[in-house]
Amino acid sequence: MKEIKKLLVANRGEIALRVLRSAKEMGLQTVAIYSEADRNALHVRYADEAVCVGGPQSSESYLRGDAILEVCRRLGVDAIHPGYGFLSENAEFARMVTEAGLIFVGPSPEAMNIMGDKLSAKQAVKAYNIPLVPGTDEAISDVEEAKRIAAEVGFPILIKASAGGGGKGMRIVNNAEEFEEQMQLAINEATSAFGDGSVFIEKFVTGPRHIEIQVLGDEHGNIVHLFERECSIQRRHQKVIEEAPSAVLTPELRAEMGRCAVDVARACNYTGAGTVEFLLDEHRNFYFLEMNTRLQVEHPVTEQITGLDLVKEQIRVAQGLPLAFTQDELTITGHALELRVYAEDPQNNFLPDIGTLTTYVRPQGPGVRVDDGFEQGMDIPIYYDPMIAKLVTFGKDRTEAIGRMLRAIDEYKITGIQTTLPFGRYVLQHPAFVSGDFDTNFVRDHFTPADLDAKPDETTAKLAAVLTAMLMSEKKAPVAAGDAPATATGSNWKRNRLGVR
Amino acid sequence: MKEIKKLLVANRGEIALRVLRSAKEMGLQTVAIYSEADRNALHVRYADEAVCVGGPQSSESYLRGDAILEVCRRLGVDAIHPGYGFLSENAEFARMVTEAGLIFVGPSPEAMNIMGDKLSAKQAVKAYNIPLVPGTDEAISDVEEAKRIAAEVGFPILIKASAGGGGKGMRIVNNAEEFEEQMQLAINEATSAFGDGSVFIEKFVTGPRHIEIQVLGDEHGNIVHLFERECSIQRRHQKVIEEAPSAVLTPELRAEMGRCAVDVARACNYTGAGTVEFLLDEHRNFYFLEMNTRLQVEHPVTEQITGLDLVKEQIRVAQGLPLAFTQDELTITGHALELRVYAEDPQNNFLPDIGTLTTYVRPQGPGVRVDDGFEQGMDIPIYYDPMIAKLVTFGKDRTEAIGRMLRAIDEYKITGIQTTLPFGRYVLQHPAFVSGDFDTNFVRDHFTPADLDAKPDETTAKLAAVLTAMLMSEKKAPVAAGDAPATATGSNWKRNRLGVR
Repeated sequence: MKEIKKLLVANRGEIALRVLRSAKEMGLQTVAIYSEADRNALHVRYADEAVCVGGPQSSESYLRGDAILEVCRRLGVDAIHPGYGFLSENAEFARMVTEAGLIFVGPSPEAMNIMGDKLSAKQAVKAYNIPLVPGTDEAISDVEEAKRIAAEVGFPILIKASAGGGGKGMRIVNNAEEFEEQMQLAINEATSAFGDGSVFIEKFVTGPRHIEIQVLGDEHGNIVHLFERECSIQRRHQKVIEEAPSAVLTPELRAEMGRCAVDVARACNYTGAGTVEFLLDEHRNFYFLEMNTRLQVEHPVTEQITGLDLVKEQIRVAQGLPLAFTQDELTITGHALELRVYAEDPQNNFLPDIGTLTTYVRPQGPGVRVDDGFEQGMDIPIYYDPMIAKLVTFGKDRTEAIGRMLRAIDEYKITGIQTTLPFGRYVLQHPAFVSGDFDTNFVRDHFTPADLDAKPDETTAKLAAVLTAMLMSEKKAPVAAGDAPATATGSNWKRNRLGVR
Repeated sequence: MKEIKKLLVANRGEIALRVLRSAKEMGLQTVAIYSEADRNALHVRYADEAVCVGGPQSSESYLRGDAILEVCRRLGVDAIHPGYGFLSENAEFARMVTEAGLIFVGPSPEAMNIMGDKLSAKQAVKAYNIPLVPGTDEAISDVEEAKRIAAEVGFPILIKASAGGGGKGMRIVNNAEEFEEQMQLAINEATSAFGDGSVFIEKFVTGPRHIEIQVLGDEHGNIVHLFERECSIQRRHQKVIEEAPSAVLTPELRAEMGRCAVDVARACNYTGAGTVEFLLDEHRNFYFLEMNTRLQVEHPVTEQITGLDLVKEQIRVAQGLPLAFTQDELTITGHALELRVYAEDPQNNFLPDIGTLTTYVRPQGPGVRVDDGFEQGMDIPIYYDPMIAKLVTFGKDRTEAIGRMLRAIDEYKITGIQTTLPFGRYVLQHPAFVSGDFDTNFVRDHFTPADLDAKPDETTAKLAAVLTAMLMSEKKAPVAAGDAPATATGSNWKRNRLGVR
């Protein structure tokens, strides 16, 4: 065992604080780094030691691997947890950490490299018979060749940047006529965003749900999955509400997707916590999208339904310890939801709304967890992701988790900036969400800013009606925890999804 | 089904807020009552409506059943949740509520009457073969007769007020010589405290652990138990740290005590949530003590290990719904701890330390729940129980729950008054607590105020050593969640308990 005594967290905000908490519970000494914009941040106060590594821009501080390694040398740090974002998926940094004789709490640089590129990832998993969305196997830049393949796959098709992520460099093409122009735009966008203009072409799945599987591997060849998270509620191609388990997975489908996810991890000898993302189409076919080689923002919902602390598991694995459980010993208990509370204005296209947290009162009580990095009076810095907090609720079933989330949203008092809290309240009361009949187009199909103008009285009455209806349907057909669908019926869901709006 | 639409909570502080939260999650309308001392309390702000029912003394407000019923009539309330304390175990009030055509969220007045008196409780359970501490069957006031029985039972013996509770009117007598004087003192104390001088006499169990079983019954004759809570860490005969499950119960003993608890509930046709208290002696014999016919302060630890919301279960049962689960469907998941954060000075005999919460910052993050009724800047009123909050932590096992509690205690920032937080930190790091080898005499045997003067550095080092030791012992003998003993071995515990210090 390579014992970790002093851990540096190479991150900021809620995830830095969250990692520090687990490290503290394990009895480790902790080191925080911070930029000049984060001098008063909570993670700085929380760690045993904290060092400023540079200016407010990420490139001057949180992305400076050399400066971070210098802090490690100076303070006798023996391991680095990268959190998510910043250097977390940078294979070169992981290699530097290991070469400096330190432990990188994450997968090997080799695994990162394989999964960091969509095409190499697809190549790697081929031997394992993982279902892929039909399309090109290799990056393409020849427009005529691309056009021919698109016709073969059948429109609508999707053009995606090979090095992309977060929706950048993505174009949907509905027919052959507009193909050439859209392809050229995609290449230009990808070149400017990632410095790499190669793209690939795949079938565009209509009415897709985003389902991802959490995996965990050790250095002894053991890999398990920790079930799924559904992340279909997105705005601007970015997740905003996540849940575990999904409302529509059957135990059989869950087991099948889980097996596939473990195979994907095995294809790159994965160690630590990772996430295998899938698309689920309206006929419940699933397709491998990509693997994220780090802790995800939405990992708490998995923690709540499995009872595991994923950060502690990461640290244990990084020390060379074998997993303490087998796949058979893992079960789903209850249901968890996460709402990302962003400093954004849902009435104004979810544009960031930076400012001061004039009032900031967190919800409390049973089944509520808040992961954040702010307190009342603090500013949301303009330099970083505008996420204020992750509001997580859990209960014995999906209905209870929804009721708790609505209660918690009402208790959450934030003034000084606009947030996604009212949007969350809207979604959680929407019949499509409550019934489980939704996909990644929820915002496009069901949301207009005027929806947030409803009077509180109306929403309370609406909620009461929805909850009563659910209570009735539950009494008719009780479903054990972990079974799915929890409330939606498969036939309904399929029927409604056949016509894409 | 007698549907509840509008619920009044006849209580204050953390339990009022806690009940209101569950009611809100169920979509009920809520009404709070308050005294003149509680005008700015959080429960007043939280409810949909709030009514002042009188002066700051409990007798002028929270104990005024007539005024509370008047509020119900005026506001169209259809059910009352009494919380704990105040009117929660007042059979006369429960009867008044029912006669006014309202639902009392609690057991029947008959069940309260039976269990409210220790002697009638013992009579009621006799048919079920429940083990009792050897002693008198009936209340005694004749000193000579009492002396004869005491000699028969064998010293040390305990003299207890028939109507007592919380240690009042209790005397331990070690030998025949001091018996008469102590008996007279007990009678006087009981008369002045409860207006009832009758006492009974029983064997004094040395090295006892306080283990209680949560039960839940419906109006259709179904009764289940929700496993045990261990509440042996007490100061001044009052619980201060509780946990579930107990570190020393085997699955067999748990099942046996559970069966007994269900029988006790059956003996009084119990409905709703109740608690059956037992003493466990050093040879793991258990004895029925009494039944509390209400929600307990420490109910959250049971909620955390079962995934149930006990307040919602109470409300469902009160509406006439059958329990939604059988005994076989209930399991223990993980481990939970509760530290009661009192406004008391542990350096000064745990005397109440009333004042203003100059700083009040709650701990956050995974596995932490805070049930409280205060915020920064508020005063702790002198009129009521000085409990500020219940700090609850939970994890996959006892070790994790302890690590989280220590982390949460460090995060909890309270200034302006002394609290039991440092005492909690001391107990949770003490080898006797960590190993599970403790009883209700923990404070007497292991604590002196000087113990709290240790420097933070020392306690951190001590904690690291303890956690490392536990990690090692766990690796040697892994125990599945819900099994006990978790860390202590039975033989050790017995051996150490044989000599009572």
